Amino acid sequence: MSGEERKKVSSIFLEYAQKAELFDYGPFKGSIVIRPYAYSMWEKFQAYLDAEIKRMDCDNLYFPCLIPERLLSMEKEHVEGFSPELAMVTHGGGEELVEKLAVRPTSETLMYYYFSKWISSWRDLPLKVNQWSNVVRWELRPFPFLRTSEFLWQEGHTVHATYEEGVEQAFDALKAYERFFREVLAIPVFIGKKSEKEKFAGSLYSMSCEALLLDGNALQIATSHNLGQNFSQVFKVDFQDKHGEKDYAWQTSWGLSTRALGGMFLTHMDEKGLVIPPKVAPIQAIIVPIGSHKNEEVLKTAERIKKDLNNADIRTRIDNREQSPGWKFNDSELKGIPIRLEVGPRDVETGTTKLVRRDTGDKSCVPIEQLVINIQNLLEDIQSNLYKKAQIFTENNSHKVEDYEEFKKIIKEKRGFIWADWCGSQKCEETIKTETKATTRCIPFEDKSSFNTGKCIRCGHKAHYRPIWARSY
Amino acid sequence: MSGEERKKVSSIFLEYAQKAELFDYGPFKGSIVIRPYAYSMWEKFQAYLDAEIKRMDCDNLYFPCLIPERLLSMEKEHVEGFSPELAMVTHGGGEELVEKLAVRPTSETLMYYYFSKWISSWRDLPLKVNQWSNVVRWELRPFPFLRTSEFLWQEGHTVHATYEEGVEQAFDALKAYERFFREVLAIPVFIGKKSEKEKFAGSLYSMSCEALLLDGNALQIATSHNLGQNFSQVFKVDFQDKHGEKDYAWQTSWGLSTRALGGMFLTHMDEKGLVIPPKVAPIQAIIVPIGSHKNEEVLKTAERIKKDLNNADIRTRIDNREQSPGWKFNDSELKGIPIRLEVGPRDVETGTTKLVRRDTGDKSCVPIEQLVINIQNLLEDIQSNLYKKAQIFTENNSHKVEDYEEFKKIIKEKRGFIWADWCGSQKCEETIKTETKATTRCIPFEDKSSFNTGKCIRCGHKAHYRPIWARSY
Repeated sequence: MSGEERKKVSSIFLEYAQKAELFDYGPFKGSIVIRPYAYSMWEKFQAYLDAEIKRMDCDNLYFPCLIPERLLSMEKEHVEGFSPELAMVTHGGGEELVEKLAVRPTSETLMYYYFSKWISSWRDLPLKVNQWSNVVRWELRPFPFLRTSEFLWQEGHTVHATYEEGVEQAFDALKAYERFFREVLAIPVFIGKKSEKEKFAGSLYSMSCEALLLDGNALQIATSHNLGQNFSQVFKVDFQDKHGEKDYAWQTSWGLSTRALGGMFLTHMDEKGLVIPPKVAPIQAIIVPIGSHKNEEVLKTAERIKKDLNNADIRTRIDNREQSPGWKFNDSELKGIPIRLEVGPRDVETGTTKLVRRDTGDKSCVPIEQLVINIQNLLEDIQSNLYKKAQIFTENNSHKVEDYEEFKKIIKEKRGFIWADWCGSQKCEETIKTETKATTRCIPFEDKSSFNTGKCIRCGHKAHYRPIWARSY
Repeated sequence: MSGEERKKVSSIFLEYAQKAELFDYGPFKGSIVIRPYAYSMWEKFQAYLDAEIKRMDCDNLYFPCLIPERLLSMEKEHVEGFSPELAMVTHGGGEELVEKLAVRPTSETLMYYYFSKWISSWRDLPLKVNQWSNVVRWELRPFPFLRTSEFLWQEGHTVHATYEEGVEQAFDALKAYERFFREVLAIPVFIGKKSEKEKFAGSLYSMSCEALLLDGNALQIATSHNLGQNFSQVFKVDFQDKHGEKDYAWQTSWGLSTRALGGMFLTHMDEKGLVIPPKVAPIQAIIVPIGSHKNEEVLKTAERIKKDLNNADIRTRIDNREQSPGWKFNDSELKGIPIRLEVGPRDVETGTTKLVRRDTGDKSCVPIEQLVINIQNLLEDIQSNLYKKAQIFTENNSHKVEDYEEFKKIIKEKRGFIWADWCGSQKCEETIKTETKATTRCIPFEDKSSFNTGKCIRCGHKAHYRPIWARSY
């Protein structure tokens, strides 16, 4: 993909996103308004993820949105990582505050101050909580949904008595995210470990789900961190074990945000507009009555179909706005509604309706009596087709590279994922970043051959890892 | 109720609330952490209200949490009402901001700036949206749940083509809140119009649900505002009507917050602890195994009962912590769990279990086979009993007063709701507030005799209204 084509992908997305009323630019740099069409998809994300989170025995709760500077500064790496992005409250209730407060960029420091108070014995463990909220991170290169100065997310935080439990919990959360992306959003993701340089500020190690977007850039679309005892030692989150010994607790944190909406849009869109996976589509089937203002029978039939489909839990609407059928067809394609039904006077006579699927454009005539079962099957088919299509795109844009000149050329000309061996030194990682702007996205778990298979792409010394490299959002 | 007794109610509530792990004091003045037990009740509030809001054809969306000063200042009354309570962000991303941003205290000004962009024709109306979010209002006299510097809420905002539609929408929202309080939280509320002095800053008129808490103070527990064209004129929310004429739109806004949690706690608690209405109780039935560590049959029976009840959608848990049964009984009473089941070795033999209801303390022996139907009926009975009890309390603490000296005496010694005639002048209202600290809570809709029935309690002139007066949170 050329630079020209990549830029075109971004600008086309922005055009679609505004026309389809997904967002509007917000009142401060990098902020956006999430409009109802996009927000209703986020509600579907929430419903699915909240059930997964509760299944992991996490309880939801809510911590304040403002964090005293003193708490934020307690973990050194953490504050260094976040301080350039903070929004600071300096005045409250008409007076200058004695201590400045940051609008939360994430809640580790605040929560762990309290965990320290709440936990004293092994009986209090594990403590597993989750928060749905907004966070603010000042964004210098904003892009709607993908990089915004405020976003919505869930942040899970758990505290355990052993290292092993922490390892398991962090991995469980990551796997839950992976399932969500693959099965619900139809996004093929790679899961793996972040490098030291790319990990979360303050974690022992971080893991992520990485997706490849249509413009050839990578997106870190969810993360899960094993915090080890890094925070528990600083915040004194300790407990008395069964033998009466004191120990610091083991912690994890993991999050998924409205960035995932952007990831989904930029995985499935095509030349006609957005393409929304059926499982999260607010409208799964739209009925367009043809010549309806002249024909009462058409409207009656449309209403009957809508009722039948809604009763079968297919999210259906009738588009009875004033515009022409052609305008409505384009609009439903722009919005990425999975299935369109066209009902005209002739259809009423023959008892059939024309069915158009958004992903392939295929058209068919279906007897109205068989619509429910047809559409149920079709929605499943569209869902899996979108996944396959995205998987082929990812494969076609993944490159196994053994030569650094080739690496540079691909990053410059095509982008995509590059699998290339690495010695593991931060020096090589930094040099590559400086020279190509590519970073290690993650060291994938799935590739068994990722250790000791060759030479570092940069220095030629023995390689210890095979990460995915890419330019990223 | 004496001053002594009233203070006791507050301090007992704070004791219960901390012991039952409803909250912890937050990191800045007036903030609280909403802990899982309270938050899970809020989730039930949300589920119920969100369905009501969607039933009113409102779409959820999300606006940024920071509002530029310029927008906040556009409606004069509005900014005067809120400016003393603002938290101001002055720095972002390490730099001083050119324009200060307020953490949203409410979102009218921000939303309506956008509504103006989104609306141009009658075809765009009605626009009906809702936002679930946090808001910050610096609180000088904080009290957990009832008056907090940050709280969670929903804010509904609608835009209409006619005055009448606005009137209807504002009233529909108010009635939805009233149903919620009466039917779900078992709180008897009065609904009515706020006085000019007490209305929302910038509204045409405001309406509220008012509850009487156990300490004799009133609580404005939800509000609905008809904004008329006040904001639409300032923010240029105008539209072209069907005849091509331009007109300003008619708007409403309405909100309900985590304050309602506090209202619920302080309506139903008793001398043993919290009392949670069954419809929102996170745990509806708790099983306490007696001598369980000695008897495997007891644990098996408890598990079987739990499974049966959960299958019948009764939210059930087994308390198998290490503590003694007596400790667990107290704990379940403190937490206000509607039903407690005690299962011991003898119960296993006889196939029965001891059932204790939290509201009355009544105990009964119930055959295990009949538990489901028994508990289903009991939960309904507890729900309606709590409502009746609260209604009797409200009646017993409502006073029809015709003499100002009596008014002052009741406010000072007993508090409660006072129904007293009023001429309608702000002067009398303010004098009464200065002299007694009582304010008009609302002018109830239900009392048909509220107009022209007598003389103003303060000045003796002809009365035009019969408001409820009270000391309030």
